[in-house]
Order: sequence, then structure tokens, then C-alpha cells
Amino acid sequence: MGSLPSDFITKSKSVDTNEFKPLDPEDFREKAHKTIDFIADYYKNIEKYPVLSQVQPGYLRNQLPEAPPDTPESFDTILADVQKDIIPGMTHWLSPNFFAFFPSTVSSAAFVAEMLCTCFNSVGFNWLASPAATELEMVMMDWLAAMLKLPKSFMFSGTGGGVLQSTTSESILCTLVAARDRALNEIGVEHIGKLIVYGSDQTHSTYMKVCKLAGIHPQNIRSIPTSVKDKFSLSPKLLRKVIEADVAEGMVPLYLCSTLGTTSTTAVDPIKELADVAKEYGIWVHVDAAYGGSACICPEYRHFLDGVELVDSLSLSPHKWLLTYLDCCCLWVKNPKLIVNSLCTNPEYLRNKINESDSVVNYKDWQVGTGRRFKSLRLWFILRSYGVKNLQDHIRTDIQMAITFERLVKSDHRFEIVVPRRFSLVCFRLKQFNGFEPSYTELLNKKLLERVNSTGRVYMTHTVVGGIYMLRFAVGATLTEECHVIAAWELIRELADTLVKECYSSITANCI
Amino acid sequence: MGSLPSDFITKSKSVDTNEFKPLDPEDFREKAHKTIDFIADYYKNIEKYPVLSQVQPGYLRNQLPEAPPDTPESFDTILADVQKDIIPGMTHWLSPNFFAFFPSTVSSAAFVAEMLCTCFNSVGFNWLASPAATELEMVMMDWLAAMLKLPKSFMFSGTGGGVLQSTTSESILCTLVAARDRALNEIGVEHIGKLIVYGSDQTHSTYMKVCKLAGIHPQNIRSIPTSVKDKFSLSPKLLRKVIEADVAEGMVPLYLCSTLGTTSTTAVDPIKELADVAKEYGIWVHVDAAYGGSACICPEYRHFLDGVELVDSLSLSPHKWLLTYLDCCCLWVKNPKLIVNSLCTNPEYLRNKINESDSVVNYKDWQVGTGRRFKSLRLWFILRSYGVKNLQDHIRTDIQMAITFERLVKSDHRFEIVVPRRFSLVCFRLKQFNGFEPSYTELLNKKLLERVNSTGRVYMTHTVVGGIYMLRFAVGATLTEECHVIAAWELIRELADTLVKECYSSITANCI
Repeated sequence: MGSLPSDFITKSKSVDTNEFKPLDPEDFREKAHKTIDFIADYYKNIEKYPVLSQVQPGYLRNQLPEAPPDTPESFDTILADVQKDIIPGMTHWLSPNFFAFFPSTVSSAAFVAEMLCTCFNSVGFNWLASPAATELEMVMMDWLAAMLKLPKSFMFSGTGGGVLQSTTSESILCTLVAARDRALNEIGVEHIGKLIVYGSDQTHSTYMKVCKLAGIHPQNIRSIPTSVKDKFSLSPKLLRKVIEADVAEGMVPLYLCSTLGTTSTTAVDPIKELADVAKEYGIWVHVDAAYGGSACICPEYRHFLDGVELVDSLSLSPHKWLLTYLDCCCLWVKNPKLIVNSLCTNPEYLRNKINESDSVVNYKDWQVGTGRRFKSLRLWFILRSYGVKNLQDHIRTDIQMAITFERLVKSDHRFEIVVPRRFSLVCFRLKQFNGFEPSYTELLNKKLLERVNSTGRVYMTHTVVGGIYMLRFAVGATLTEECHVIAAWELIRELADTLVKECYSSITANCI
Repeated sequence: MGSLPSDFITKSKSVDTNEFKPLDPEDFREKAHKTIDFIADYYKNIEKYPVLSQVQPGYLRNQLPEAPPDTPESFDTILADVQKDIIPGMTHWLSPNFFAFFPSTVSSAAFVAEMLCTCFNSVGFNWLASPAATELEMVMMDWLAAMLKLPKSFMFSGTGGGVLQSTTSESILCTLVAARDRALNEIGVEHIGKLIVYGSDQTHSTYMKVCKLAGIHPQNIRSIPTSVKDKFSLSPKLLRKVIEADVAEGMVPLYLCSTLGTTSTTAVDPIKELADVAKEYGIWVHVDAAYGGSACICPEYRHFLDGVELVDSLSLSPHKWLLTYLDCCCLWVKNPKLIVNSLCTNPEYLRNKINESDSVVNYKDWQVGTGRRFKSLRLWFILRSYGVKNLQDHIRTDIQMAITFERLVKSDHRFEIVVPRRFSLVCFRLKQFNGFEPSYTELLNKKLLERVNSTGRVYMTHTVVGGIYMLRFAVGATLTEECHVIAAWELIRELADTLVKECYSSITANCI
């Protein structure tokens, strides 16, 4: 199956070597093999580079010409320039010493699958334009749903379904608009100004952006405060209070974004209790499980998803913790029809009999854009190459390394863990020293972070939650091993030694 | 520059071969080389496969297991399954016999650059997170602007700037929201229902979707009719009339999407004349040049951009005609501040001194999502590997092949060209035969298309414009040579022979 009779193949004219052939298979083969060796060597040597780029703004813009060349340059020159011009300007996200933000994870399996996706370059906007891409995506969304023990109401083999988006932002936008249009159908489009959306002050910053994109009035976005007492998770009681106040004002509660693993501190909102409240008011409940959701493939973390059967949609980004490379965000919805109602387009030039039948999914109607890549290959390759057990081990190993780091921090009386660790992120800081102002503690921690990052040996970031400035140590870059975590701690400890000595030896606060 | 002293590098513990290492450099090297050969062979043999997939809905879903395996499968098995299970379900967009939609173009240079982008997996949301990615993107946007002879008001070296989006839809969404928020600042958010947006009945179908996403009331989207007399381009006179009627009703004209190369027939809207009208009413003018814009790198087509200095934003998708692979859409804006005002987020965990200075661009504030890939590498590799002259020749060669096809159609008295050809798309059909109903002509052309596509030797699509059903023959797949165009015409002609004979030999219309 799948081949034409050989006499079908059009005879090519004899090769004219002067002709411009941007995809000659043998030229492709040669350059691609060279590049693979370049990349394998980069991965081998990645620790040689400062993990946080040490360049200054303008470093590259100032050295490149203002316009492209008229005539070709050699491939070897260009590849050499990647080494010379690009690599010094990279913050090396794949370095084993990258502990900033959340790591973005990768694997050989996903890399080759991504090459195949690029290779086909299929634009799978509807079924017929790329049947394999659509069907594999449907199956992969069901496979991952099965790993997460999602109810059948989110699966194609049940009554729901899933789609690969690029980012959490798009996942939220598509579901928010579906919820909005369902509500506007009832109350009339002229009442868009009555719609209220809910999240906590720990909800990802993109939520506010996306709500504004969807035409929700900025003053109608409720950012409900959290507290250290609740470990920065959203309180169902407080949610109810806010909703009731809105309803009393004649407003229409629309959408709640709850989070499984917030970006600042990996706080987990109580899905079941929040959904119980929200459902009383007909609110669409979304779970943003971008980072934390992946841990739920391990039975011991699955309880964080308790109550998911009550929500309307769930997103999770395998590029954060399931080795897929960017960009890959899974979105499951309970009622795909509502998404399609809001996002479908049906221009004549995309019509065909099969696509208009009910038997197929046309993914263009599940997303913002029309074109889309064959991303599900990455999930297929990962899940088959490694198997569920290895992926569970991978999550557990990362968390184990974070526990190691947490122990090291706890073993040093000058430091404290600020927020209880849940997954593989440790939030810590130099404690407040007796007799010093809180603002001085913040300054000290800022200085420590700056010194750590400027070595190029480790990259960490910070956050401020509940008014507390803290350092974030996020374990999980694919190449990180325990030795890197221990070495990072040694570096932090040594630099803290110097810093603390400097400060105690000076009496005034202006020592730093 | 750019390397750490060797004693900085953390000593790895001795290798435990049982450990799960998803990115071992040598394992990566081996699998990636294998995959490159697989891909080079695919490109070499691509004509062996039916260009339009011949599978039926469910072909893949029905044969894959319901859940992923617990333990690993071998790489060779999985790669063999790509050949066995995936390739038969592909519609081969890169086949030289693909003449459907608009082709999606590729090159060896872009492929290797895409591999490097994947390799780094940098998440360049702000400058510091990936300085090279941000700066190269800025330079590439200026390079391409220079090739298009855009005014300095769209360039970073002038007063504007550009950004890479994934799709035209996102480009329109970001600019529309910037325009919307500027207007709402003046009239108040409660008046969102007064905002009116304009396009023609030939504007891409995604425009309507994007307007609805942004909270524009569906009844406020004006789809102005075009006609065959105006070659399906938007009439400035008609635009003025529609705007005036809206203004008279107390509505607020907001945004115009004009098109340089419409999807159905590659019609070109008169940018200057439309902008002259729109500017009187303070309307944001966007040019969607997704397909046609690339031709403007050739001086003889640059006139289609006349008046671009008057507009606010312009988008162009190099994945359509400039060999980049998906997904790559350039967006230039005259006033980046308006985009940033609408789309910026500034959470604590992304803050750092450099990013908050005015000296750098943080691209997360120019797009819907937060994360973003290092896509500009592809433009850098293409522009340097081929040079401007080769890219111009590539555009001209595609157009020349379309002219060849057009001549062949014209040489057959049974066919007609329905809309004058502008670029590399030919819109044609079997003429209406004497004594037959127009609906019969449509049926005949539909049947011809079905027969052509079912051979698997050629894939074309259709459209309906001005009530006329027509066949679209879009030249430009990267591997297409003149011999493929001629062979495609031979096939169409032969199948038309049979079809016309069948119909004439039968007197009743139910023969087909």
C-alpha cells in the first residue's frame, strides 16, 4: 500500500548543475549529517559554555551586515558562524547547570521525530490535508489521557478529545472563547462587559493577557489573593465570596483558571473543591497543569488531579517535563463542539466531502491559526522509545534530585526553605539575620543570585511571593545529574560564605 | 569568548548503563544520522507515493493500541512504522506533483537551521533568556524588510520593527488587539460593541475567526463584496461607502485587513488607495501578504506594495514561498509600542535588570504566548546560503512554470482561464458547453478534479468565486520542475478527454 506504479513517476529532465535546487536530496544528506555531528558535539560539550549568556545588548546586531548577501555563502562558513556568533549569545537551556524558570526538556526520540515532522512539512489543517497527522494526534491525546487516568469524558474513545497547541496561552484562549461565546449566546453579545473571569494572584501572567485578548474587560479579571498559610493555592471559600459579590452586582461569572503547579512556587489549587463552587454558577473550569500535570503520570502524584472529572478543560505542556522539545502543549476538552462552534471556518477552498462528514476531526477548528505542524510524532516516538515506566522514573529522579538539594539547603543554618517543595522546584533564601531589616535580606539574596549567575556555572532565577523575595532552584534539565545539583549547591554555599563574611565585616548596610 | 575554564566543568559520576538517559550524545548521533538517511531517501523517492493520501478515515486510529507501552520499543521498529503506518496516510505536501492550496516551501538550508533551533531549545521570551535568538530575529526582520524595500518606519534600524509569528492568524490577532485597545482607550471599554472591522469577501477565512476571538461582535465584521470586473480586489470606493454608512450609524471604524494575493485567486487589493480612504477615518490598516508578499523581493513585482508606507502593519509567510518550512510568519509594525501596550506581561519571575531597560526587545510582549522558538535561524541560513539573487530567481521560475501551464490551458479550446494569473496560481475550468446548464459545468469540473486527484499522480484543489466553480493549479512546491507541470497538464487533458467523451456519448445529465 502507498506506492504508485513506477511508470507513474514523471521523468526528470537531465540535471542542470547551475540550476537553483534548494532541496537536492544528496546535498540535503551531506549538510544534515554535518549538522547532526555539530549538534551531538554541542550536547557533548555543553558544560564548557557559561549557562547564562554573558553578552551585552547589541552584541550581535552590531556585528551583522544591514542587508542579506546577494550571492551564496558556503555552508561551512555559516555553520562556523553559529559556533562563533550564536553560541556565545545563547543562554543554554539544555545545560545540566540550568536551574532557572522551569527547564524545557528534550530527548533523542523527540529530536528525530521533530526532524520527521519538519521533513513532511504537512499543513494538517483538515483531515484530508494530512490524515496521518490528524489521526496520530487523536491517538496520542488519548494515550496521554490514559497515562494521566483522565476520565473518558476527555478522550476521543469517550465523549471528549484533545489537541496539540503551541502554548498554554493558546489553550486558554481557545477554551475561554468557547466559554465566552456560549455565554454570549444566552445573554447577548452586547453584554460582553458583564462577563467575569477568575484566577489567583499566582495564576500565570499570560492568563491576564489572554483574557484581554478575548475582549474581557480588564476590570473584570479577578486575581484572588493567596497566602503563605494556604501554600499559595486558591481558596475555594474566597472564590465563592468573590463570585457571590459579582453575582450580587449583576455580573456573569464565566471562567476559572485553576493551576496545578504555579510558576512561582508550584502551588497546587484544589481542583475538586474549586470546581464544586464554580459549577454552582455555571462557570467553565480550566486546569492549567503546564508543569505539574506531567508528574500525575506517577500514581503517587495522581491525586493532584482529583476532581478533574468535574472540569471543562485541562492543559499540560510536555515540553516542560515530558522530553518533547518546544513547543508542545496538550489541551483536552470535555465538549469539543463548543470549541469548534467558536473556532470553525469553512471556506470553499478547503472543502471536500470527507472533511464535511462527521467522521473526521479538522484540527483547524480547534486552534487559533489555520496551518499546523505534525507535532504528535514527537509524543509517539517518546512514548514508544521510552515506555511509561521510564517516563515515570524520569519524573521521580528529578524530584529526588530536588529533595537532595532541599536537604542540602536545610543542612545550612543560614538558609531556609520558604515554601514547602512539592515537585522538583526548591524555593529558598538566605534567612533574615538578627538585627537586619527585611529589605536587607532581600538585597543579600539578590546579590547572591547575581554572583551565582555571573559565574556562568549555574543559572537560577528568583520570584517574589507573599512579599518575600526568594531564589528558585528548578531541577529537571534533561542532562542534569545529581553531581550537578551538588556542585550547584557547593557554589551557592561558597558564594554565600564570602557574601555573609563581607557583610558581617562591615557594620553598615551599604557594604553591598 | 564563550567558554568556561575547564575546571569549571562538573565531573560526572561513572556511567551506569542501566540509567535512563534520554539525551546521550552518542545515542543521539546514531539515531539522528539514521533518520537523516531516512529523510533523504524519502525526498529522493517522494514521487513514488500518491501525492494525495488514499486512506480512509480511521485507517490509523483503528490499528494503534489504546494505550502506550510500559517498556521501550526499539528505534528501528518505530522508524519502520513511520514507513509502514505513517507514510501511506500522508498527503505529500513536498511532492513535485502537489499543486493544491498554496505550496509550503522548503530547503536544505532551512532544514538544518530548524535542527539547530530544536537543538538549542531556547525559550526566548525575553532578551536574557536567549540574547542570540532575540537579536538575530531583529536583524532578520530588518534584512527581509530591506529585500522588500519596506520603509524605515517598519525597521528596527528605523522607527518600527518586526517579529516572527507562527501564522497569519496570530499576526492579525496581535495587531487587531493593539488597534482595539487604542480605540477602547479613547471611547471606553464598554463601547467594544461599536467597533467595526473591514475586509473583502476574499479576505482569508481566518480573519473572521480572529475578529471574533478579539471580541469584535460578529455582526460588526464587514465582508465587502468583490467582483470579477475588479479581479476580486477590494474597491476603495465601496470601502468608503461602507465606512460612511457605519459612521452615520454612530459606529467606530477600527481595522482594515487588505490582502496581497488572496487565497482563492491571488487577487491583490490596491493598498495605497485603500489606505488613503482608511486613514481619513483613523482605521488601522493591515496588509496580509502571506503568499503574494514574497514575490515583492523581485523589483518587477514590488509595485504591489506601493502605498505600504501608509499602513500600520504587514504580514508575510516565508513558509509559503521563501523556503523556510512551517511555521514562519513575519509581522512588521510601524508602532511596536502599541503592540507591547496590549500584550506585555511583567511577572516577577521573568524580571531582570537588562530586560527592564529600554535597550532590548522582549518578544513575549509581541505575541500571544510566552514561550517561543529560535525560528530566525532559518531565515539566516536561507538568506546566506542562497543569496537574494537565487531567491528572486526561485520566485521567477515558479511564475514561469505557472505561465507554461496557463499557455497549455489556453491551447485547449475546451478549457478557459477564469481569473487572470498574477503569480504562480492558475485558476481554470472546463468551459460551459453549448446547450448545457451552468450547474452541469460545475459538476463536470468537480468530476474532473475528483478523477485527477484519485490517480494519486497530481493533487489540485478548487474554489468558488463570484459563483464560479474553478480548479486551482498552484505551482511552487520546491521539487516541482517544468516536466511535472507538463505531465500534470497531460493527465488533466487525458482525463478531460475521457470525461467529455462520456458525457457527449450520453444525452442525459445523469451520465456523471
